[in-house]
Amino acid sequence: MASATTPLLADDRHNSTASSENEASSNRSGPRWVFRLREVLLFTWALLATAGVLIMAVWMSHKSQTDSSKPPGKRNLIFMVSDGMGPASLSMTRSYRQYTEGLEYGDTLTLDKHFWGSSRTRSASSFITDSAAGATAFSCAKKSYNGAISMLPDHTPCGTVLEAAKRAGYMTGLVVTTDITDATPACFSSHVDVRSQNDEIALQQVGDGALERVVDLMFGGGRCHFLPNTTQGSCRADDIDVVSIAKEKFGWTYTDNRAGFDDLWEGRSEVPLPMLGLFASTDVPFELDRRNMNDVYPSLSEMAKTALKALEKATENSDQGFFLMIEGSRIDHAGHYNDPAAQVHEVVEYDKTFQAVLDFLDESKTEGVLVATSDHETGGLSVAKRMFTNPIFVPSVHETITADDELELNSDYPEYLWYPGVLANASSSSEYLAIKLHQHIASSAKNGTSKKGLKAYINDELVKAGLGVHDATDAELAEIASNPERAQDLMAKIISRRAEIGWSSHGHSAVDVNIYSSGGSGTDAIRGNVENTEVGDFLRNYISVDVEGVTEELRKKYRRSKMAATKLAATVESSSREDHWAAHEDLAMGQMDGSY
Amino acid sequence: MASATTPLLADDRHNSTASSENEASSNRSGPRWVFRLREVLLFTWALLATAGVLIMAVWMSHKSQTDSSKPPGKRNLIFMVSDGMGPASLSMTRSYRQYTEGLEYGDTLTLDKHFWGSSRTRSASSFITDSAAGATAFSCAKKSYNGAISMLPDHTPCGTVLEAAKRAGYMTGLVVTTDITDATPACFSSHVDVRSQNDEIALQQVGDGALERVVDLMFGGGRCHFLPNTTQGSCRADDIDVVSIAKEKFGWTYTDNRAGFDDLWEGRSEVPLPMLGLFASTDVPFELDRRNMNDVYPSLSEMAKTALKALEKATENSDQGFFLMIEGSRIDHAGHYNDPAAQVHEVVEYDKTFQAVLDFLDESKTEGVLVATSDHETGGLSVAKRMFTNPIFVPSVHETITADDELELNSDYPEYLWYPGVLANASSSSEYLAIKLHQHIASSAKNGTSKKGLKAYINDELVKAGLGVHDATDAELAEIASNPERAQDLMAKIISRRAEIGWSSHGHSAVDVNIYSSGGSGTDAIRGNVENTEVGDFLRNYISVDVEGVTEELRKKYRRSKMAATKLAATVESSSREDHWAAHEDLAMGQMDGSY
Repeated sequence: MASATTPLLADDRHNSTASSENEASSNRSGPRWVFRLREVLLFTWALLATAGVLIMAVWMSHKSQTDSSKPPGKRNLIFMVSDGMGPASLSMTRSYRQYTEGLEYGDTLTLDKHFWGSSRTRSASSFITDSAAGATAFSCAKKSYNGAISMLPDHTPCGTVLEAAKRAGYMTGLVVTTDITDATPACFSSHVDVRSQNDEIALQQVGDGALERVVDLMFGGGRCHFLPNTTQGSCRADDIDVVSIAKEKFGWTYTDNRAGFDDLWEGRSEVPLPMLGLFASTDVPFELDRRNMNDVYPSLSEMAKTALKALEKATENSDQGFFLMIEGSRIDHAGHYNDPAAQVHEVVEYDKTFQAVLDFLDESKTEGVLVATSDHETGGLSVAKRMFTNPIFVPSVHETITADDELELNSDYPEYLWYPGVLANASSSSEYLAIKLHQHIASSAKNGTSKKGLKAYINDELVKAGLGVHDATDAELAEIASNPERAQDLMAKIISRRAEIGWSSHGHSAVDVNIYSSGGSGTDAIRGNVENTEVGDFLRNYISVDVEGVTEELRKKYRRSKMAATKLAATVESSSREDHWAAHEDLAMGQMDGSY
Repeated sequence: MASATTPLLADDRHNSTASSENEASSNRSGPRWVFRLREVLLFTWALLATAGVLIMAVWMSHKSQTDSSKPPGKRNLIFMVSDGMGPASLSMTRSYRQYTEGLEYGDTLTLDKHFWGSSRTRSASSFITDSAAGATAFSCAKKSYNGAISMLPDHTPCGTVLEAAKRAGYMTGLVVTTDITDATPACFSSHVDVRSQNDEIALQQVGDGALERVVDLMFGGGRCHFLPNTTQGSCRADDIDVVSIAKEKFGWTYTDNRAGFDDLWEGRSEVPLPMLGLFASTDVPFELDRRNMNDVYPSLSEMAKTALKALEKATENSDQGFFLMIEGSRIDHAGHYNDPAAQVHEVVEYDKTFQAVLDFLDESKTEGVLVATSDHETGGLSVAKRMFTNPIFVPSVHETITADDELELNSDYPEYLWYPGVLANASSSSEYLAIKLHQHIASSAKNGTSKKGLKAYINDELVKAGLGVHDATDAELAEIASNPERAQDLMAKIISRRAEIGWSSHGHSAVDVNIYSSGGSGTDAIRGNVENTEVGDFLRNYISVDVEGVTEELRKKYRRSKMAATKLAATVESSSREDHWAAHEDLAMGQMDGSY
């Protein structure tokens, strides 16, 4: 401590002068002694006070959680979105893991250990948001209507944190497991009135929009939106070849397969940016199914790790870091389908990805923060299903709800429990098994099979082999055989019923969603219960970027583009993509049918 | 600043001595000047460092959120339990309030502003807890089996924070809106193997247990457990007059009516402790109904405010403060009944009570903390109900789920929204209306009424007048008329269906519940996602009481009591209440049917 504080002292030469003087005037020892004592006391006081300052400073620095060993100024921001994951998904996945791995009650998910707060999710148009309004709250920090892709209620575009980051010299990336043009990634990288304008979103994402190219890396699905409708595997309405435009006009490197990804995987080779990797025609399969198709599709955590390495490398010699959005997109889909087996594996993979990002931040030389939240809950998931009523005023009547067959299944019903083992037995999602059934029906339509044969196929090949359920009732199997178009929903019900997992809806719900964080500078702003727009505020504030400037730029260009589009629409009846900008005003203020 | 630090200096007399000496030796100005400079520098350094210490200390003290204006040592601890309130209840109630009062999206509940973290709730015997194991986690800070009233899995009693507080000189209180013998209050003030032992719990609560009297104030319902079965309004199995025992043996003042409460209300007169106020035979009516019976029953916030005043007054001249547990007991019941209209009013009243406790803490001269959480969620509540399926692989088939009639009701279905206005129209709970129906049927059994007449009565007097629903279908009304024993459930469904509120269960669910707090010393320990036992740890730590000592004392007495009970049981076939201690071993490890 003394050596650390020495330079602060009046310098040593003075000390030695004083010392010799001391000797000279030793005959006047009274006052001299007092002088000396006073000096010693003053010195001791100063030393103690300085030590106090140092100790408190160290303690405060420790408390403020910032890593002072990393250079100031440069920052990386990773934002994770668990689409459709409400609080019940965490409880379900945590118990599933504790059950399947034989863990104690205190053995939690990585997410649990980084619980930070909760977010209110209602949109400008409804108490229940969709993913578009939800992601606009993150990207623009503004409430908007359901269906809005970074557009405000007055139908003017709002600048996004990703766009502003790009303008400020950051590298930017998007990693998802659904279509890269889907609402969440779209809200960071495009502006359209309604989320269904996937064709337009794809073009804007590669750079063919008002701001030109703002994204440096995109990994995910949704390839069909990038291929002209003259090609197999396209889902575009027009014949625009977005991949060619991306490559030729905006310099993207493009890969559409696992082999292409493996060349880059975890930084095996340098990733040439901008990099577009579209590994599925639409969605990447649920993790539950993907595990069995690992040679075809990379996982969320693999894509995220590769993106982190690529963006770190690309910003190595820059004064600015990167902004990366990673979405566990299909937690939401499992919610829409009410498929609990698919959902637990989606959440486990999301949790694994969260841990991978934490590891990256730990090892990185650059200061960084991870913030993760959901846009909304999906499915009205409830980790319990007990249809039994116990009316207090008619205590002797323990009647069941007649329309419901749930009660027959467990003899020890009703109890306060659920069965994670049922989910563990499933090796395929209801989505995958429904596709398999449709393929089987299509092929047997040629060969001809009886209803009885179909029921046996459903039981043996789908329900037993896929769902891991060996006690399906004849009624359950017959219902699928008679209504194959509803197979997905009916098979998800077979699982949920036996696991005693409840779902209230095939849509979204209004429950607050959780916020998770690595902690770090400024994250206190999103502690507690906050509005989803406050998460958006945090994102722009953490990297101090001028989002309002981007909004201004966009509005100017948008007005021009809209005028041009109106002119064009008045003269040509065309399928020109500019139409999208002008149309859909009415549609947008309502909500999208079947939109996720 | 200088005056504050003066006492630290070498004292003033030394200074004046040095000063005169200075003058005397002014001819040796060189070394003197150096001395003087060194002293000034040292003094400046010391002053600056001390100022630094002081500034940092003030800042840190500010950060740590403790109110240093209050005397150290003495503390009040208020613990609130929202039985059965999961995250979705908050979203529902917040939106209900925003809708009915025309508020902006950012206008939140008081609870929202004090969101602190979340709690995992699984018990030792199940992934889904009941209120008994849930409250044991708070009172004993230990996981136990469903049904346990502060008993451990090995069926030995565990000391509670309330008992230890009493032993340490604190005053203690319990305020609830259900039976005071119900699981949550019972866990703080008694020890039995299973929660259904209400008769035994009542005796222990007034002081007739191993520890004698540990509670100073009890407000709530459940009077029937305190009256001998020879009296009207008793629900005891035996003829023990617990009220008399309480008054005569343990000195309680007793009141059983609103007039008795009004004498004490908000400290109008001094509350004679110990004070037992049992204002309802069983439950205090739901707040939705109680508002119309305000002359009969006090509200939760009224009881809580009166308890706070009483305990404050009683500890005025003590070195110790008080421990008060306040439960919004019937949020849980509204969940079991799947009645969203009843639930929003229960949550609004709980929120109001939370604010009242915050106000008390603000005004109190004693340091205090408020912590609030739930034991579990009830009902699998989901703020959304959308039965529509949208199978991605059969995009043209938007078929409905045939067994479900929900789709007919709203033509613009499916949308992401729900209807708070439906809840606002209800003026009675389904519970109250079901009682009314049963009374009507009982009285018309004498006079004779047709089925058609009954249906008209149900529609006019119950559904229109009580639920505020004017479009009940003939099928809905006929179902109630044909199944009056299911009227409560059917009427709750009429409301939920129209509000588009979903319920998955009539029991509990496993979702994590929210923690709320005023903040203050030690509350960082329950930030983030914690186990419910960590909330229990916080309680005992905040008031630094020796709970383990109480456990030891209990075990010794329990062993003796158990031996006596075994002897007794072997010799007399009696209805003696000691039987309860020994019996129910098997029952306890299972879970209770119909237990809340």
